[in-house]
Amino acid sequence: MKAAGNGSEKKKAEGGASVQSTGQSVRLTSGEAFLKKRTGKAKKVVLDTSLFVNPDVRANLGETPTAALETFLTFAARIHILEFYMPPSIFEELLHFVERDRIPGDLLVNLYQKPPKKHELSCPAFLLYELIEDMRERVNKGLRLAEKAVRGAESRKAEEMIPDLRKKYREALREGIIDSKEDVDLLLLAMELDALLITADQGLVKWAEKLGIKWLFPEKFRDYLLGAIRRSELLSERKEK
Amino acid sequence: MKAAGNGSEKKKAEGGASVQSTGQSVRLTSGEAFLKKRTGKAKKVVLDTSLFVNPDVRANLGETPTAALETFLTFAARIHILEFYMPPSIFEELLHFVERDRIPGDLLVNLYQKPPKKHELSCPAFLLYELIEDMRERVNKGLRLAEKAVRGAESRKAEEMIPDLRKKYREALREGIIDSKEDVDLLLLAMELDALLITADQGLVKWAEKLGIKWLFPEKFRDYLLGAIRRSELLSERKEK
Repeated sequence: MKAAGNGSEKKKAEGGASVQSTGQSVRLTSGEAFLKKRTGKAKKVVLDTSLFVNPDVRANLGETPTAALETFLTFAARIHILEFYMPPSIFEELLHFVERDRIPGDLLVNLYQKPPKKHELSCPAFLLYELIEDMRERVNKGLRLAEKAVRGAESRKAEEMIPDLRKKYREALREGIIDSKEDVDLLLLAMELDALLITADQGLVKWAEKLGIKWLFPEKFRDYLLGAIRRSELLSERKEK
Repeated sequence: MKAAGNGSEKKKAEGGASVQSTGQSVRLTSGEAFLKKRTGKAKKVVLDTSLFVNPDVRANLGETPTAALETFLTFAARIHILEFYMPPSIFEELLHFVERDRIPGDLLVNLYQKPPKKHELSCPAFLLYELIEDMRERVNKGLRLAEKAVRGAESRKAEEMIPDLRKKYREALREGIIDSKEDVDLLLLAMELDALLITADQGLVKWAEKLGIKWLFPEKFRDYLLGAIRRSELLSERKEK
């Protein structure tokens, strides 16, 4: 999935005309990318709700989603070499899990809310095949589960069977797949910004790999932040000298 | 879904270098498209199996799929202003329904088998949202159907419930959606060739509209062919004069 405006920007650059960076989404030509690296401009990181909500992953940031988000925002305020992004749909999801009043507003500026440019982006067509074949297999599996439950209901009560059916059906049809617009938002935003994606959702990681998106083990999120703080401090010290 | 090679061809053309048409898949610049129209080069048509298999649609071409295909091929041999295409996956589907031995090989040259260039094509990202939201709703509907069947199996035998469950489940999860790689092949090929898509599958028509693909009412297929025969004959007569 690449920015559709890409070609024209490139052409302008090649034609020798001046190129203005119109926002985070415009891909840079190789020359610009090089300049950017050399001037040490911030790298982009896209974050998923799961980092603050999933208890296994959240643990080393805070005991509750609110505490984890606070820790992250406090860390992020000290990091000048990274820019953190979250699609608004994902941020809204996160707000269901945190106590809004306890989130320090002055720190929220360190987490940009940005949706992907979904009407300008495109995705490789072969992904359609993968998505559709994957869904087709799951749909068939869902039917087999349903049939099994119907047979089971001959000897057991329906109300006993249904919770188990729901669980298995949802696992079969949803796990390991991108199944919501929030998932698509995360992937497209990471593509658009050429950002690092950090998520605890294995389905998203699988699709990030198909799309060439870089990702980080979610349990390393805290270490990653601490490392970025150290590098930010080192850079500031150097500048002061 | 557009040919990825498009941009570079365009650039060459704009740069004044000579452009060679390297195949059916290369999109033409507006200037070339104009030339093509003026020289009366053949328009492209992508055909679905359903035209020969679906009894309602097939009726005016032949009593059996084999007869319908024969009629079509005989017509196609007399049409010089159209080129007919079928993705190989679709052609293979068709072969399950026809008596291979009765298909005249000399006429088959009028139906090109061509797969889409799936590794070069791309599709607009907003379609991912539509596809995934659509599947999500269907998956939920499938679960509700399964639960209903489980409840029904308390008072009726499972073997009585299952055929009805299968039918409803397949309708809910498959109808009106692109759900197979053959469907994707048809859509991508029509996109790539900028062709007219003729199919009796409403799900394909729905997606063709999202993708800006032109389509024809399948019951008008015979009339369309007869019209093309007349125009082909008229053009031949004019040339002879």
